Order: sequence, then C-alpha cells, then structure tokens
Amino acid sequence: MFCGNTLSVLLCVLIKSRNLFYLSSVRTTTFILKMSNSSPSTGVAVMHMQSPPVNSLSLDFLTELCIGVEKLEMDKGCRGLIITSVLSPKVFSAGLDILEMYGKSPERCGEFWKAVQEMWLKLYGSNMTTIAAINGSSPAGGCLMSLTCDYRIMADNPRYSIGLNETQLGIVAPFWFKDTMVNTVGHRNTELALQLGLLYKPAEALKIGLVDQLVPEDQVLAVATQTMTKWLTIPEHARQITKSMMRKPTLDKLRSNREADIQNFVSFITKDSIQKSLRMYMEMLKQKKA
Amino acid sequence: MFCGNTLSVLLCVLIKSRNLFYLSSVRTTTFILKMSNSSPSTGVAVMHMQSPPVNSLSLDFLTELCIGVEKLEMDKGCRGLIITSVLSPKVFSAGLDILEMYGKSPERCGEFWKAVQEMWLKLYGSNMTTIAAINGSSPAGGCLMSLTCDYRIMADNPRYSIGLNETQLGIVAPFWFKDTMVNTVGHRNTELALQLGLLYKPAEALKIGLVDQLVPEDQVLAVATQTMTKWLTIPEHARQITKSMMRKPTLDKLRSNREADIQNFVSFITKDSIQKSLRMYMEMLKQKKA
Amino acid sequence: MFCGNTLSVLLCVLIKSRNLFYLSSVRTTTFILKMSNSSPSTGVAVMHMQSPPVNSLSLDFLTELCIGVEKLEMDKGCRGLIITSVLSPKVFSAGLDILEMYGKSPERCGEFWKAVQEMWLKLYGSNMTTIAAINGSSPAGGCLMSLTCDYRIMADNPRYSIGLNETQLGIVAPFWFKDTMVNTVGHRNTELALQLGLLYKPAEALKIGLVDQLVPEDQVLAVATQTMTKWLTIPEHARQITKSMMRKPTLDKLRSNREADIQNFVSFITKDSIQKSLRMYMEMLKQKKA
Repeated sequence: MFCGNTLSVLLCVLIKSRNLFYLSSVRTTTFILKMSNSSPSTGVAVMHMQSPPVNSLSLDFLTELCIGVEKLEMDKGCRGLIITSVLSPKVFSAGLDILEMYGKSPERCGEFWKAVQEMWLKLYGSNMTTIAAINGSSPAGGCLMSLTCDYRIMADNPRYSIGLNETQLGIVAPFWFKDTMVNTVGHRNTELALQLGLLYKPAEALKIGLVDQLVPEDQVLAVATQTMTKWLTIPEHARQITKSMMRKPTLDKLRSNREADIQNFVSFITKDSIQKSLRMYMEMLKQKKA
Repeated sequence: MFCGNTLSVLLCVLIKSRNLFYLSSVRTTTFILKMSNSSPSTGVAVMHMQSPPVNSLSLDFLTELCIGVEKLEMDKGCRGLIITSVLSPKVFSAGLDILEMYGKSPERCGEFWKAVQEMWLKLYGSNMTTIAAINGSSPAGGCLMSLTCDYRIMADNPRYSIGLNETQLGIVAPFWFKDTMVNTVGHRNTELALQLGLLYKPAEALKIGLVDQLVPEDQVLAVATQTMTKWLTIPEHARQITKSMMRKPTLDKLRSNREADIQNFVSFITKDSIQKSLRMYMEMLKQKKA
Repeated sequence: MFCGNTLSVLLCVLIKSRNLFYLSSVRTTTFILKMSNSSPSTGVAVMHMQSPPVNSLSLDFLTELCIGVEKLEMDKGCRGLIITSVLSPKVFSAGLDILEMYGKSPERCGEFWKAVQEMWLKLYGSNMTTIAAINGSSPAGGCLMSLTCDYRIMADNPRYSIGLNETQLGIVAPFWFKDTMVNTVGHRNTELALQLGLLYKPAEALKIGLVDQLVPEDQVLAVATQTMTKWLTIPEHARQITKSMMRKPTLDKLRSNREADIQNFVSFITKDSIQKSLRMYMEMLKQKKA
C-alpha cells in the first residue's frame, strides 16, 4: 500500500485523492505528516513515521514531531490524529534512541529528556482524538507513544510485540510512563510488566488491555480510519472536556515536576554502571544481527 | 407481576403478604418506597421507582428520593435497600430530567444540581447494603444511580442498555460521576466509556464489570432479594466501616467541592451552545418516537 | 516431600543438597528460614513456615519473621525470597493469631499490631524478588502475606481458599490491607471482597488476579523456583527502582500513620462488642472441629 521511500509515498497518495494536502513544513527526512481531510469539520491527520531503520525517537525526531502535533492542535480543521509507521519490515517505533543516552554530555541528555517529556505532554494531553495504528513492534518509547492515544489498533501478527521493557536494558521507566501504563492496564499488570520489562505478543496485549483491537496486518490503517469516523461523531467540546478530566491529574504530575524529572534522568543515565548496561545492550543487539 | 398504576401496585402487594408495610410519607405520585421486613433485624426496603414515562430524575423526584433514603438510613430496623423500577415498558431510569436543564434560570439549575449531588452522596455513602435491580434501560443518571449501589443485577434483555452517555448529548459527566465509574470498571474502561458516551448491552456491561450479574427479566427482583439475604449475614458494623473505608475518599472529594461543582455545572449548562445541544437532542428524541 | 517435624525437615534437605545452608539464628520452633544458593549472585532464600497447627501470625512468629527478612535484605548474596508452608494437612497461613487479639491488654494489642505493620512494611517494601508458593489455604493475614509478594503461585486444589475475610469475623481489614488488595485486584473487586469477607477458591482467585498462576499441588515450590530464576535475570538495580516506584506511595501511607493506625486498631479491638464477635468466632471454630 505504501511505497518504499518518501517521494513515492507522496505520489501514491496524490494519485488516490485530490482532497489530501500536506503540511510541508513538517515533511522532513525523518517523518511525514499527512493531513487528509475533505472538509474542515471532519479533518483527520495521519502521521506516517518514516525514520529508518526503526523509527527511533531521537532528539531531532521528537522535536519535529512536537512541532507537527502543535500545528495540528492549533488547526481548527483538524480533529483527529492517526499515528502509524511506513517502515518495512514493520516496526511501529523502537522507542527512545539509545544513542541519545550513551556517551552524551549531561546537558545533551537533559535536552533529550525534555523533548521526550514534551512529546508525551503534547500527545497524552491532545485535544484531538488520537488513534495508534500499530503496524509493527512497539517496545519502550514506542509503546509509550501508543499509550498516549485514545485508542490502539494493532496488527495481529505474532512476530510483533509491545511493552515497556526498560528494565531489560537496565534502565527504568519514569513515573509518568508508569502512570500512563497504570491508567491503561491497571496497577497489577503494570507492576508485573515494568518489573520484568515484559514485551507482549498482540494476543496477550489485547488480553490485558494494552491494545484495544487486533486486525489483519493490511487493515490496520483502514480500521483506524473507520474508528476515527465513529469518534468524530461525538460532540467535540464535551468529548474534549471529558478527556481532559480523565488525564489532567496525570499530566499535572509531570508538569509540576519537569525539572526534577530531568535532573533525575540525567544523574541516572550518566552513571558508569548504567552506561555500561547500555553498551552491553547495544552489543547484544549487534550480535543478534550478526 | 406489577400492576399498571400506583394504586394497583399497592393492592397487589398487600394481597400477597401481610408482613409488608409502607412508609406512607414517601408514597407519592412519583415513586413508592416499599419497606418489607418481618423483623427489625432483617429489614429490607424496596424502592419501586414509578415516575412515568421513564423515571426521569426531576428535582421533585430527587427531593423525595433523598427524604426517603434519609428516613431509611435513620431506621435501625432497615439494613438493606433494593432499588428497582415498576414502569412498563421497562426503563430503570432515563437519568437526569433534561427539562430541568433546558431553558431554566441559573438559580433553578443550581438547585437541581444540588439535589443530584445530594442523591449521589446519600446513596453512595449509605450505611445500608444497596442493590440495584436493573429491570430496564439505565442511561446517564440512571446508570449513576445503579453505580452507587453495592451490587448490580441486570435483566438479561439485549434491548436494554446501561452507561454514562452524557457526551452523546453534548454534556459532560462531572468528576464524581467519573470517579464512581472508575471505582467500578477502572480507569481505561471509563476513559473509553465517557469519551464516547457508550451505552452497553447487558452482556457487555457484565464483561467490563459495569453490572455484577445478569438474570432472566422476571427474576431480577427475586435474585436481588436472595442476594440481599447473603449480604445481611455479614456482621453489620464491620461491613459498614469497610464500605466507608472504600468510598470515603471519593465522597469527600465532592463534599469539599460542592459549591464549586454547582457553579461549574450552572455556567456550563446555561451556555448557548449547550442549550442548543440539549434542544437538538430533545428534537431527535421526538423524531425517534414519531 | 517435607517430613513431619522441624528436625526431619532439616535432615531431608541436607541429604538432598549439600549446597544448602541455614541461617541458624532464625531456625526456631515457629519457623524455618532456609537459604539455598549455590553462588552469591543467584541466592534465593526459601522461608518454610512451620508453626502448627495453622501458621498463625502470633507476635513471636511475626517478630522472628521480621528479623529473618531483615537479615536476608542486608545479605548482598540474597536476591530472592520464596515463602511457603511445610504444614500438613496444608495451610499456607491462617492469618493473624486471634489469641493475640482476644482478652489482651491494650498495650499488648498495640505491640502485636506494630509487629503486623512491620511484617507488611518489610515484605511489601522488600528489595528482593518475593514469590508466594501458596500450598494451602490462606485467609486474612495469610492472604495479606501473599499479597506482599511480587508473584503468587497457588496449589490448584479446590479445598483451599484465599481472601481477606475479616468482616466475617466482625473485624475490619485496615486501610493498608485494603490498599494492597486494590493494587492487586482493583477497586471494585476489593469492595466486594472486603465487604463480604470473600474467600476465593483457586480458580476464582486466578480469575480476579488475586493469584497469578495455579499449578498441581506437588509442583508449587518447583514452579516458584523456576519463576524466581526468570525474575533474577532482570538487571537488579533497575528492577528494584521500578518496584519501589510502584509501591512507595502505598508504603508511605502507613509509614506516616503508624501510631494513629495502632491507636485505631487498639481502640477497635478492645471494644466489648468486638471481643464478643471474636469469642463467637472462636466458639464456631471449636464446634466445626467437634
């Protein structure tokens, strides 16, 4: 359905529908934000993540993502956002870019973490209806990004997995990752998932409520679009207030602790022992490939 | 089983059992409180809601209900309360009376909202064991009323539904509706249910824990009565303290914010846009009937 | 598998494995702490509770347990703790010793309650991975002890049950029992379980998440040991921080209210009406036996 590189994606889509248009300012090398709406009142944006090889959340990627989401948020014509990946073989997002955490200065680590916070605050607090069309594996930060959405549709492919597996790398999911997980699957599932760094197959993820629906791999985006249509029938103002009521306490916890959370991350990640854990993890990944 | 109007209900019951007696002060045109107990220590009251056509929670209805519950609460002989409907075709309660929110003065809206709060505080905080015998549809405020009870038994009839569907009307369930829902079905189910204003069929409601048990329609009250018997075997004092421990934090949140919550409701509901939403909803209901 | 008295247990084990050793200071008449580790980095302690007839949590038992757990906590070589029972017929633990609450002075009751608090604080806040190998019934305080663990494996024997059944005795599970239960099975299940003092059969306990896994009775300890091996592969520091993040708010609630909680317990338990309830319960137990 999607072609192999940025240019061809654009061409494919333009051929299919002349109603689609693009926020050119956010069409970059790292990802594409495609805004597809026939009328201002039914506007749905689709964010096609395309940052090979695995949509890692680098500082650059996060910065562009935040700018893109902020523009959509201010666009009265845009009421829904679908997040998906166009990588092949399929990965939704491999999560935070380890290279941003390894061998970097405290200042740079702090800057990176601030961008991670910003991404979460923008997505979890979005006024839009947000749907994750999870068409590939989604560990760690990729799982977090999915969890910020209002609804999660995952490809029913047992080769994919999703979860906050930070402890497996010797690092720790911060309190707001944890809070988002608790809000989704409850305290007990989160305790097990985070302590063991569990990655769930789609069927298991559905069972504990980590995703809401499984569909055949080639229908993920189509079902996400249909689902969005249903959500957009709800009176907008009432839905937004309701969403904010559900999520504000969780958002406020980070908003009032951003600086301390950054300091906490920086002092943890720059420890020798943690840097060593990260190096070992990267070497293990290399060996897996080889 | 129940006859078609207030007078016949009374007659039917008196014929069946001479042990039953009535709190005449709360036998009104809007509803009947039937107190059935053979001995003071096993007293169970049954509140038969009968306010045609759909047991809407009007200011009058709520006021009478609160007076009735308060009397039962002070009656040492009464330890359990079953809430059910005697309307035919069956509706448990259609929830808050829209007519109390449409075209009314801010003062009147505030008075109404205070009565809704009072109903919730009295029922959710009741020392009695409370069981909802849900023998009909139970949207919005009707669902809230069910959620205040210790146990929910619903008629297994797929024509009935239950849920907090406020957003569908363009209005918003307040934080204490939300808290009660979260306490019952968890954060994630509540987020989905409230944003989309979902109404659940009995089987779906059972699945997410919105009701505790489904029974054939003609056995709802009988099973409620049997269930009550089981609850009343638990040492009373210990059960009351336990119930209070579970619910007090949620009750206190409203108790310490009643006035602000009323102001919030009044300023929201009297907005032109919301009044317009309500008018559209009422017109849609009329068209459905026609 | 286990022999009938303390001495034979020790002999049996010593014959089976020369790698096992014992913390002699905590090998007492009430229970045995067996520390089985082949190397300091993979150390797992197994606490075999053996206080006939039903592993009641007396003041002595609790005191010794806390000393034992504290020693393990300080032992860098010990990373995991499995709690199980060696009684036959099988009871995991019958919970708090009623004799410590009946006919005792307020001072003694306060001392007892402080020890119950200490047990919970030590186990729920343990840095070790803790697994409950529930090879028998586990009511009240026995259930609480299980709930403090990171994972619960129960014998799939329908004669066994588990739950916080305090209200059945006319007493009340304190807020931190409740909090631990809510963290495990959620608010609604806890509301039902605590109000009714429900004891769950293994299959029911699994269904609501009160235990994590059922296994044939003779495999409980073996599966617990295998499970522990899996947990110990997780980087230790990251797992400990994660566990603390999940449990600290719950632990802090009691830590900052210990004295008030003790006063509350003492004034409740020394009431004439509660003492009468306890006497009636003990007489009922005697009649059951006879």
